[in-house]
Amino acid sequence: MIITEILKKKRDGFELSEQEINFFIQGLSNFNVSDIQSAAFLMACCTKGLSKLEVKFLTLAMRDSGKKFDFSSIKKPKVDKHSTGGVGDKISLLITPILMSFDVAVPMISGRGLGHTGGTVDKLESIVGFNMSLNYEEYLRLLNSNGVFMARQTDDIAPADKKLYHIRDVTGTVESLGLITASILSKKLVEDLDALVIDMKVGNGAFMQDFDSARQLAQSMIDVASESGLKMRVIFTSMEQPLGYKIGNWLEIEETISALSGKSPKDIEEITFKLCEGMLLSANIFENQSIAQNKIKEVWESGRAYNNFLKMIKSQGGDLDLSIEKYKNYPQFTIYCEKSGYLQHIDTLYTGIVCIMIGAGRKDINDRIDYGAGIILHKKIGDKIEKGEKLASLIAKDKSLFSQAADLLKSCIIIGDDYLEAPKLILDEWII
Amino acid sequence: MIITEILKKKRDGFELSEQEINFFIQGLSNFNVSDIQSAAFLMACCTKGLSKLEVKFLTLAMRDSGKKFDFSSIKKPKVDKHSTGGVGDKISLLITPILMSFDVAVPMISGRGLGHTGGTVDKLESIVGFNMSLNYEEYLRLLNSNGVFMARQTDDIAPADKKLYHIRDVTGTVESLGLITASILSKKLVEDLDALVIDMKVGNGAFMQDFDSARQLAQSMIDVASESGLKMRVIFTSMEQPLGYKIGNWLEIEETISALSGKSPKDIEEITFKLCEGMLLSANIFENQSIAQNKIKEVWESGRAYNNFLKMIKSQGGDLDLSIEKYKNYPQFTIYCEKSGYLQHIDTLYTGIVCIMIGAGRKDINDRIDYGAGIILHKKIGDKIEKGEKLASLIAKDKSLFSQAADLLKSCIIIGDDYLEAPKLILDEWII
Repeated sequence: MIITEILKKKRDGFELSEQEINFFIQGLSNFNVSDIQSAAFLMACCTKGLSKLEVKFLTLAMRDSGKKFDFSSIKKPKVDKHSTGGVGDKISLLITPILMSFDVAVPMISGRGLGHTGGTVDKLESIVGFNMSLNYEEYLRLLNSNGVFMARQTDDIAPADKKLYHIRDVTGTVESLGLITASILSKKLVEDLDALVIDMKVGNGAFMQDFDSARQLAQSMIDVASESGLKMRVIFTSMEQPLGYKIGNWLEIEETISALSGKSPKDIEEITFKLCEGMLLSANIFENQSIAQNKIKEVWESGRAYNNFLKMIKSQGGDLDLSIEKYKNYPQFTIYCEKSGYLQHIDTLYTGIVCIMIGAGRKDINDRIDYGAGIILHKKIGDKIEKGEKLASLIAKDKSLFSQAADLLKSCIIIGDDYLEAPKLILDEWII
Repeated sequence: MIITEILKKKRDGFELSEQEINFFIQGLSNFNVSDIQSAAFLMACCTKGLSKLEVKFLTLAMRDSGKKFDFSSIKKPKVDKHSTGGVGDKISLLITPILMSFDVAVPMISGRGLGHTGGTVDKLESIVGFNMSLNYEEYLRLLNSNGVFMARQTDDIAPADKKLYHIRDVTGTVESLGLITASILSKKLVEDLDALVIDMKVGNGAFMQDFDSARQLAQSMIDVASESGLKMRVIFTSMEQPLGYKIGNWLEIEETISALSGKSPKDIEEITFKLCEGMLLSANIFENQSIAQNKIKEVWESGRAYNNFLKMIKSQGGDLDLSIEKYKNYPQFTIYCEKSGYLQHIDTLYTGIVCIMIGAGRKDINDRIDYGAGIILHKKIGDKIEKGEKLASLIAKDKSLFSQAADLLKSCIIIGDDYLEAPKLILDEWII
């Protein structure tokens, strides 16, 4: 097979065969395919689309480009959750400690922040000493001792995805349902899962801004999952405003700790419970929804989830005391409300971009993150606010970034005269 | 402007503005645009197409990526010819010596072989000592002394085209009318021409295999030329079989010399005369077609064209005697005809590929050419042939290549019982 002929075939809108897709993806590893050929391939996939079969073959070829883990020695159902990405989305950090109290294993391999959204890896790496570069033996040890591990994508996990990902980011080829599906599922299929719950974010802070495209992505993922024998549940949740009040890596660890200590924002609690419920039902731990809900609540309210969190952090080398010390004297800049009224709207995409501006995320793949940087919202949609009250605070090591960021953040928040209810959080659920 | 946003715009099928195209093409030089971004851009251009305006802006931006020559000191009409590429197409070598006897200047910047087709640069470089890497002073000197120069594209001539060209070749993005137009005309617009004649090849040995796509390419080129104030004439010629009997770099120099010495194959003479006529009429040297034809014939038959050729070769450092010596003892392999009948069809594309197989062209950009290698056809379409007669000969330094190449070449030639006329050579002519 000749790579340029495969490219021409896709360019002209023909469906690629399993053999052609395998040859192409294998070529990424054996240097038969150059980066410029990958870029052309990705653009052709975006403009010509990918058929169901092509997405399946692409996903499997990408999965097989690296190691596939064997967790069969773990005699519990293995279940994971993947969020399609949002702002202030720290839910993975809350789910894992809850699930540690149930008879499931959660082999969680997470990603870095992407675009305007945060990433679980960056959040956990804000904890001094926390190690996410684990090997197979460490995965097994942690699954045995804790029932969970939280790791980052290493070079041997779906390396074809890693390579294509970097290229997509700079070539305007991120927005393709097929490519997104293959990227997410190739990594998740490596984890040897029994079930996967997708938190499909929808709204002005998500990659899928409307329900229609979110449904299409869900369908594309379900098609591949069912062909691959992976049980999947998609929970559609709103991303019309940030989750919780804190956005930024260490700030979200702080909010996680206070949520687990009984002071949780409502939205965080609701979505955490719903995703845990989905995972436990998918893993067949409970058959009855309300029993699952009660058991989750019990673990949450008893403080067991909080203790599990401390144990999980310690097991992977993290030191929360040192971390608290590290971030305690960060410069803050507070934005005060200029008129009284109700908070009606938050431009969540641009709120995420403000976070990047002040160092909480990367502009470029090689940027270093200011792990202490971020935003604290003092009000959210539906809240009444008086002129002169605190609206939001910016936190960053480099004070010079505040002024421009504050202007942009102000423009993201609309205060109006009329009360508007906060958008409904859980929108829909698809089970296969 | 942000490069990925330009890529997304083209990906989604929107028309790019002049500013966006300029920013992109300038980015190729100032390293704002990486090769993978170029590859994605080219694929988006292929799949989404380019509007008339986009092709024009792209052509002009590519022209302006390098030097634009000023030949205003040459007080003659400046005219050039460009062939879209064929097999055995040595016509540039015959046109220039004829035009040296008229009051025109021909600043001819040519290309290397491309795909299965040969290139004037490779042909002339088979001549020992012949120098095609000329600078501006040498262009002027040669235009003054000879009225012509034959040069290759140097790094300062449309460098954006050069960069994109290499990427197109390996990313399956060659076949785009807009990109082909921009590539050809960006280089020709550098030459400060008064008129350009396009030899638009049509047929199984051309890039445009049918008349329809040839017409579309011609229209696309005419659109840009008329917007740029360049007088253009498109002559559509058949490429259903190789031109002349010899294919290969030095072999085509040999055939050029014998054609100029009064032993020209019919097709070579016909097409040479037609293109010269087009160039002289476009340059307003003659108003009357039949006068032009008579004058061309006179130069050809008197031997003046032959003497001009010798002068041109010598002026650029070429030594024909040394060249004849160099190639005289080349291994040959002759294919004999296996049945009697009439030659009915030649697969010209694959005949070109056979040439590459035996070293006369490049498989890869870094390949070294065997300048002496090539094919001699002993018969052409319409010729009667007896079983056991010579059909074709292969010539190459490396004899081990003959057996496989001979099999492929045999399969390119169809001998049948019925006489079929050779296809008409000059198909149409468009004048603007």
